[in-house]
Amino acid sequence: MHSRTVFFVSDGTGITAETFGNAILAQFEMKPRHVRLPFIDTVDKAHQAVRQINHTGEVEGKKPVVFTTLVNMDVLKVIQDGCKGMLLDMFGTFVHPLEQELGIKSHHRVGRFSDVSRSKEYTDRIEAINFSLAHDDGQSNRDLAGADVILVGVSRSGKTPTSLYLAMQCGLKAANYPLIPEDFERRQLPPALVPFRNKIFGLTISPDRLAEIRAERRPNSKYASIENCRTEVAEAEAMMRRAGIRWLSTTTKSIEEIATTILQEVRPERLVY
Amino acid sequence: MHSRTVFFVSDGTGITAETFGNAILAQFEMKPRHVRLPFIDTVDKAHQAVRQINHTGEVEGKKPVVFTTLVNMDVLKVIQDGCKGMLLDMFGTFVHPLEQELGIKSHHRVGRFSDVSRSKEYTDRIEAINFSLAHDDGQSNRDLAGADVILVGVSRSGKTPTSLYLAMQCGLKAANYPLIPEDFERRQLPPALVPFRNKIFGLTISPDRLAEIRAERRPNSKYASIENCRTEVAEAEAMMRRAGIRWLSTTTKSIEEIATTILQEVRPERLVY
Repeated sequence: MHSRTVFFVSDGTGITAETFGNAILAQFEMKPRHVRLPFIDTVDKAHQAVRQINHTGEVEGKKPVVFTTLVNMDVLKVIQDGCKGMLLDMFGTFVHPLEQELGIKSHHRVGRFSDVSRSKEYTDRIEAINFSLAHDDGQSNRDLAGADVILVGVSRSGKTPTSLYLAMQCGLKAANYPLIPEDFERRQLPPALVPFRNKIFGLTISPDRLAEIRAERRPNSKYASIENCRTEVAEAEAMMRRAGIRWLSTTTKSIEEIATTILQEVRPERLVY
Repeated sequence: MHSRTVFFVSDGTGITAETFGNAILAQFEMKPRHVRLPFIDTVDKAHQAVRQINHTGEVEGKKPVVFTTLVNMDVLKVIQDGCKGMLLDMFGTFVHPLEQELGIKSHHRVGRFSDVSRSKEYTDRIEAINFSLAHDDGQSNRDLAGADVILVGVSRSGKTPTSLYLAMQCGLKAANYPLIPEDFERRQLPPALVPFRNKIFGLTISPDRLAEIRAERRPNSKYASIENCRTEVAEAEAMMRRAGIRWLSTTTKSIEEIATTILQEVRPERLVY
């Protein structure tokens, strides 16, 4: 049961407000209810938001916590004047001191995700997603020269979610290739990858965790057996060591942590700005 | 050319620092260089970060802007004491007032993305990604009953990136189905979808933009011709109207905006918390 509600109020998508608010709230032992109020971009909508927030506060008998990333000052003023919650104004707090330091005025433009859909950065990102999808699970050897990174590892070591995350959130063209028994017999990386060794990054995982994950897909199979998982992981790690490629263990890591580590190691030139 | 560097310093991935910092910086007409310094979780690494920041400031002759989301107080103190940049301490600024209001102490635990890899929320998210991949572009009719949302639209209207985003960032099982000439001739939604009409959401796009996007893939094809795009879009919109499903135009919208709107409309029960 939640005992308090947290609102994320934004004139854009509310993604920034929620990302940051969640990070702050993760510092507290509590499970509040989350309500995202996106696209609050008129004074009318602001009054509606105030009513909803204040009503919730009355019902729960506790001040709602209200994270705002409002750029429109008229909208912000309605919230500031009317809202009985605890207001955490994320933009106001930092934008003003930055104006001082930078010596320039902020332009109060709403929503950094709007008007991006025709920008180069955005179309590159969509292209990266398409690339990563087309190069998921070794589906295609075409244009591997265009990849920013090529992930390798045994089946279910985390390659697919990591590739898609790298594409979606970082704009990286991330291909991924499974390491399979044929590779282990040959004791070599998949031949298509050899010319691109400097962009290969390996993922490994503990055999116990791998067996658990595989058992959810195919219970009681040889594929999911702990013996088979042990062998595959040992073979894959030996191969990565022999090939001299960088690798990490995904066992206790989230996609975000895996992707951050890979980015630090790979540092694709074209993404430095 | 950049003229100033912005650092994002975190004891975790730095994703929160960068997401929020980018939103703040989007308020200013400037193109600073971005440097993310993740996993700064020891005093030693903090001293290294301070050296890097101060060196950059000297070389550029301008104070670097330093966004921090540091939870470890010893690390934060090293940065606060040594850093000659402009420090924007995102956690300190908000955590203290929240402690007062909530009447509980924050636990200063590092990295909300760590230790999540075995949580229910995290495994649900991975499952959602796998579901969305398996149900991309009408690949599978299996277990559509388990989908949270089913996107429909003509080829290249934005279904695939939106589905993957909804899965990756919101944990939604998002299937997607193309609307194709056979559907238009039959004047009906793809038969497999009919039982699930209440979770269908349509994407449309302006014919001009669609022709542009398709021409990048297949220049000078009938597929990409403006006449064909006009016909397909008109047919698809007519079908969505007849079927009474909700839809939006993706023409000028980013994935984030499309996904936020869909979430608002669909509001899957299981994701309310």
